[in-house]
Amino acid sequence: MLIQGGLVYTNGAFVKRDIEIEGGVIRSLGTGLEGNDVFDARGFVIVPGFVNAHTHLSMSLLRGAGDDMPLHSWLNDRIWPLEASLSYDDCYWGSLFGIVEMLKTGTTCFNDMYFHMDATTRAVRETGIRAAITHAVIDLGDEKKAQTELQESSRIHRMCRDEKRISYMMGPHAPYTCSEAFLLQIKEYARAHGIKTHIHLSETRKEVEDMEQERSVTPVGYLDSLSFLDEDTICAHGVHLTPEDIKLISSRGCSIVHCPQSNLKLSSGIAPLPQLLDAPIDIALGTDGAASNNSLNMIQETKCMALIHKLQGATEVPASTAFSIATRGGGKALGLPVGELTPGYNADMVFIDASHFSMRPSHSLISNLVYSLQEEAIRHVMVDGTFVLRDRELTMVDETSIIEKACEHANALVELIE
Amino acid sequence: MLIQGGLVYTNGAFVKRDIEIEGGVIRSLGTGLEGNDVFDARGFVIVPGFVNAHTHLSMSLLRGAGDDMPLHSWLNDRIWPLEASLSYDDCYWGSLFGIVEMLKTGTTCFNDMYFHMDATTRAVRETGIRAAITHAVIDLGDEKKAQTELQESSRIHRMCRDEKRISYMMGPHAPYTCSEAFLLQIKEYARAHGIKTHIHLSETRKEVEDMEQERSVTPVGYLDSLSFLDEDTICAHGVHLTPEDIKLISSRGCSIVHCPQSNLKLSSGIAPLPQLLDAPIDIALGTDGAASNNSLNMIQETKCMALIHKLQGATEVPASTAFSIATRGGGKALGLPVGELTPGYNADMVFIDASHFSMRPSHSLISNLVYSLQEEAIRHVMVDGTFVLRDRELTMVDETSIIEKACEHANALVELIE
Repeated sequence: MLIQGGLVYTNGAFVKRDIEIEGGVIRSLGTGLEGNDVFDARGFVIVPGFVNAHTHLSMSLLRGAGDDMPLHSWLNDRIWPLEASLSYDDCYWGSLFGIVEMLKTGTTCFNDMYFHMDATTRAVRETGIRAAITHAVIDLGDEKKAQTELQESSRIHRMCRDEKRISYMMGPHAPYTCSEAFLLQIKEYARAHGIKTHIHLSETRKEVEDMEQERSVTPVGYLDSLSFLDEDTICAHGVHLTPEDIKLISSRGCSIVHCPQSNLKLSSGIAPLPQLLDAPIDIALGTDGAASNNSLNMIQETKCMALIHKLQGATEVPASTAFSIATRGGGKALGLPVGELTPGYNADMVFIDASHFSMRPSHSLISNLVYSLQEEAIRHVMVDGTFVLRDRELTMVDETSIIEKACEHANALVELIE
Repeated sequence: MLIQGGLVYTNGAFVKRDIEIEGGVIRSLGTGLEGNDVFDARGFVIVPGFVNAHTHLSMSLLRGAGDDMPLHSWLNDRIWPLEASLSYDDCYWGSLFGIVEMLKTGTTCFNDMYFHMDATTRAVRETGIRAAITHAVIDLGDEKKAQTELQESSRIHRMCRDEKRISYMMGPHAPYTCSEAFLLQIKEYARAHGIKTHIHLSETRKEVEDMEQERSVTPVGYLDSLSFLDEDTICAHGVHLTPEDIKLISSRGCSIVHCPQSNLKLSSGIAPLPQLLDAPIDIALGTDGAASNNSLNMIQETKCMALIHKLQGATEVPASTAFSIATRGGGKALGLPVGELTPGYNADMVFIDASHFSMRPSHSLISNLVYSLQEEAIRHVMVDGTFVLRDRELTMVDETSIIEKACEHANALVELIE
């Protein structure tokens, strides 16, 4: 397939290039390329799809089910009771619903940590999106639970090996919900199988203080004392970090997934992004779940990130850095060849109408992408060389029926606890 | 005209109501109302249009022309040289371009402070939107300039008296750009004619420190010493305020227009909104100009406002407060019967597709409006009883040609200084 005549964002610049795709992978970029299966991309700005590097997809069902509440009552009175009732079907429809939003806002790959991952895997398969999947596990010191969860993780891991667009990660929920023994077993499994680990880390001040009180060490220091931190560790949030934590994360080569909107909404704080970038630490961007955002819209998330760190100075996190974090940063963290439009990378890309008001005038297209782009300008989305969104219509599934079914499940869930 | 069967947001609740409109004004809300000219609004959530209470519309031409720069070089090297070259035609096309964005994102009324206001007035007339207009004036102590600008303000003020959807305010740029004598003359004119005054106030730390150094008083204290502050004073920004400033503003009855995204982008800081609301002070919301935002999208602005103040606590600025600030808060500040769907108010309203994914599930519609709504869900927009957007198409002007012409002007402007 040949994508002809688009203005392509590659290597940090916008250039007129044709893109040759074979087997879902970008084979070459050039000018005047010829081929049989040609897509006319004149009038489009073509950028890599966003990588939403930390989310809980099925929580889309809970959007708006508990807002403007203190974190403690949000979790205890709303989220946890609702999550306790989640079925496979809920998560299947919740995942489909979340994927609708992601594809329509230009996300081509996401990193999910949740329950009923068979359901999410099925939704990924049916919609054409790409994903890394993490079965979230918690043992709270219960050895039997730990063993069951390890087996379940292993089962889903094996299942994902046959999936073209799905990779698997180990998913210990957090240092405060998993026992030391469990964390060690999880890491051992991950290393033995060469897969990554996805964990919540230092999201709230409270969890850091609790850990310091209990073990006289920060959560980061604690994980490092277990030799847990390595290049295959993806830490979600990283809001409350000491300078020593930052050095440690940098030296171990972990990546951090920044979730600015969720961190604001739950009053967790602002991660020290400029300091993390300086360390340096590889940074990706995530929306977190739609219950604490309440969108899965990476356009919004990228703008929010670029804006809030300017509290430290007007030149912090410029547009090119923000866009890079939201795309190639995610690909790097997930260890997938996505987030860049370069030969050898997956053909995951977004076709933006260059004439849409939010992309004009074109003084700086990278500024427009980060500071003014609106999702309506996203006309087509391609994942793995296949158009999964054409003229803002999903090509592989029916949006209307997904929304209806998802809302039936969402309403039934909330009725359970009300 | 009768708007039938919509789910209407009125008095802080969503209720099935028919809306009867006469002469551009809401006459009554009820159920089972009948009429000849019926619009079927089933399937829509109907809310008051956003009021963008502080912007510089023609700066849309400069979107992306100077981002990620320190404020000083942004103004000196980019914005001021560009503004010095602005013509009537630039501002006409820039205003039209900005109005396209506002209508398509649900804003039905804006408060503009800029130059060539004849051009903006013409654009308002042609597009069907509602506006308060302010000719921005600066004298820098030049008495002759002050007189010319007063005359020009008076000319535009008189012109606006015949306009159905346009009101006029006096627009001294800021305490540091207008002399004491000029400020007094402006206020005298405003009081004599019963019109409001729109001024930038305490936006940056530097302007506050400069004033304190020069006059040993804060900008707010300084204006109060001139008896400038009153119920007809609209202060844009209010980022750097002392507790005494806040008390003073509250006791004088001024309103503050909060511009969170612009304040973040220019590294000005975060206005103390929870403290302002507690004072109490009437708060409205504005995007500021598209050169420092870079959108005129009040949906985004409202979400940003609701999120950033949760740094002070998860229950601060809940969704209903945020939406109220963005709608009725603007109407109150501008002294116009807009921002509420209540008999006697202008029929300025937005029809949101209740089935759009960003409005589902419907656990909390007010949460969805603030935290997840995307502009694509806005199908129709009505101003003064007339549909100015139908199925996302502007009804009174041609969007495509406006964007093209505006970009020609935008490019020519930027070429001048490059």
